[in-house]
Amino acid sequence: MNFADRLQERIDALGNPSCLGLDPMLSYIPEAFAERIRMECGGGAGIVRELLARYCSALIDAVTDIIPAVKPQIAYFEQYGPEGILAFHDVVRYARRREMIVIVDAKRNDIGSTAEAYARAFLRESGAELSPAFNADALTVNGYLGIDGIRPFVDACGADGRGIFVLCRTSNPSAGDLQDLKLADGRFVYEAMADLIHSWGEPLIGTSGFSSVGAVVGATWPEEARAIRKRLPHTFFLIPGYGAQGGKADGAVAGFSESGRGAVVNAARSLMLAWKKHNLPEAQFAEACRREALEMRDALRLALAARPKRPE
Amino acid sequence: MNFADRLQERIDALGNPSCLGLDPMLSYIPEAFAERIRMECGGGAGIVRELLARYCSALIDAVTDIIPAVKPQIAYFEQYGPEGILAFHDVVRYARRREMIVIVDAKRNDIGSTAEAYARAFLRESGAELSPAFNADALTVNGYLGIDGIRPFVDACGADGRGIFVLCRTSNPSAGDLQDLKLADGRFVYEAMADLIHSWGEPLIGTSGFSSVGAVVGATWPEEARAIRKRLPHTFFLIPGYGAQGGKADGAVAGFSESGRGAVVNAARSLMLAWKKHNLPEAQFAEACRREALEMRDALRLALAARPKRPE
Repeated sequence: MNFADRLQERIDALGNPSCLGLDPMLSYIPEAFAERIRMECGGGAGIVRELLARYCSALIDAVTDIIPAVKPQIAYFEQYGPEGILAFHDVVRYARRREMIVIVDAKRNDIGSTAEAYARAFLRESGAELSPAFNADALTVNGYLGIDGIRPFVDACGADGRGIFVLCRTSNPSAGDLQDLKLADGRFVYEAMADLIHSWGEPLIGTSGFSSVGAVVGATWPEEARAIRKRLPHTFFLIPGYGAQGGKADGAVAGFSESGRGAVVNAARSLMLAWKKHNLPEAQFAEACRREALEMRDALRLALAARPKRPE
Repeated sequence: MNFADRLQERIDALGNPSCLGLDPMLSYIPEAFAERIRMECGGGAGIVRELLARYCSALIDAVTDIIPAVKPQIAYFEQYGPEGILAFHDVVRYARRREMIVIVDAKRNDIGSTAEAYARAFLRESGAELSPAFNADALTVNGYLGIDGIRPFVDACGADGRGIFVLCRTSNPSAGDLQDLKLADGRFVYEAMADLIHSWGEPLIGTSGFSSVGAVVGATWPEEARAIRKRLPHTFFLIPGYGAQGGKADGAVAGFSESGRGAVVNAARSLMLAWKKHNLPEAQFAEACRREALEMRDALRLALAARPKRPE
């Protein structure tokens, strides 16, 4: 089944266009929770993997019936070296088993032959020579190298119901350093990237009306998001930057389609560390995450309802 | 010691501005070599890690006294899942022990907080909370997100003698899809990226006259390389695409400084699979790699000598 259709279906079923971002740090793990894991595993070798994997799994368990998708950020696992990557592998597998759609945030990019290796690593049941790959539903990628570096991912999407999200307008403060440069033809660089994303994704538009070649459009730039949506009526948007990065619900829904679809909004720290906001003991991080997830869902629903609606 | 100075010193010592690219595939490993490893390890769990790591180590051993740097491409390891990453970790460590300068080709890019995690993963002695990180000398990165996503890497370079190479003009055929768009101010996008790289790297120019914030400039685009060198007299260039991708010595040296310095040329497949070109038995892949490396060195020396020289 087409990835965009699958993601939209799950969003519709839960009435929630949110995504749980997983940017784990060992320092986020409450001491009592960590101590229990250390006791069970006897500490020593493999403990970092167990801590990271079980912490992320607890967050997944807390929201899997209310949030459709999860976005593990691989950098936060790579910073723990090989053990972190083992935990990453565990988390992707666990999230899929819990029926969450897994969007790996890795922003991969390279020349064609190397992009093929990345596609095998992240968007296939098994990797090279039948190795156990990371096997996610979707992957974020960077389109700076043009179509050569995107085609292997698009092929994987088409063959196997996977998706990609290509960076278009990112959520960070300096996004404009390159992305806002004005082209001779009047477009901004991010608009030119949007047009490339459109052409790359056209063959993969599903019955939902959206393509499995999506775009990353930051929640922190609602004006740009509206402009990009006009150019890209059939593109699924991954909208990061909600919560800790400053994105609010009103801004986050600016990139949704006119019928309020075709987008998923990611929050990581505001969900992972929700116990702070909700004045709960640290040990109740999972309950707090669920409470915050419900508030985020309701805020997005309200913001979507408040938008003027026209049929598409 | 400043990374650019260290790299230039090693290039000068060996009289060779080449880099050994490591893009390993299990299918490249000669059967006799693989069989010996299987016998020693008893096959089973961990064999993929052993095969990849020992194959790469044999290539490193073959050239460590004649080539200054090695560039493992992480995608080729990621395609073998967690075991591939364990092999990648082994290879980076082994290459540094053999006194090669290790440039990890991973083209990482993200918002500031995430780029910090990547910098910990790749450009520090140890990762988060003292985990064993990948600890390379340098990392390739993608500057599409602007300075926020680059600063954590630049900080690591300054603090610890590491380097980065920012994608400027890539070696692949579709490099121009985005990079060749013309800006309203007359520059190409890749020239605007070059100007950003200049500003990011200025504080890290060493006694060699080159900065630890380098640029990736494909060997396949000599004209563009010359234009970028004019804009970036103090930037170290990583020049991929020599050999299998079609880059020749004359084109590869187009990006060198006027005195023939400040650049390193990468070849992967043409060195790894040199036994084919040299009509040697597959089992002599390492000897063939060395022979090809000497030919590449001599070709680059000749091409540099043939250029008109002016003092800088």
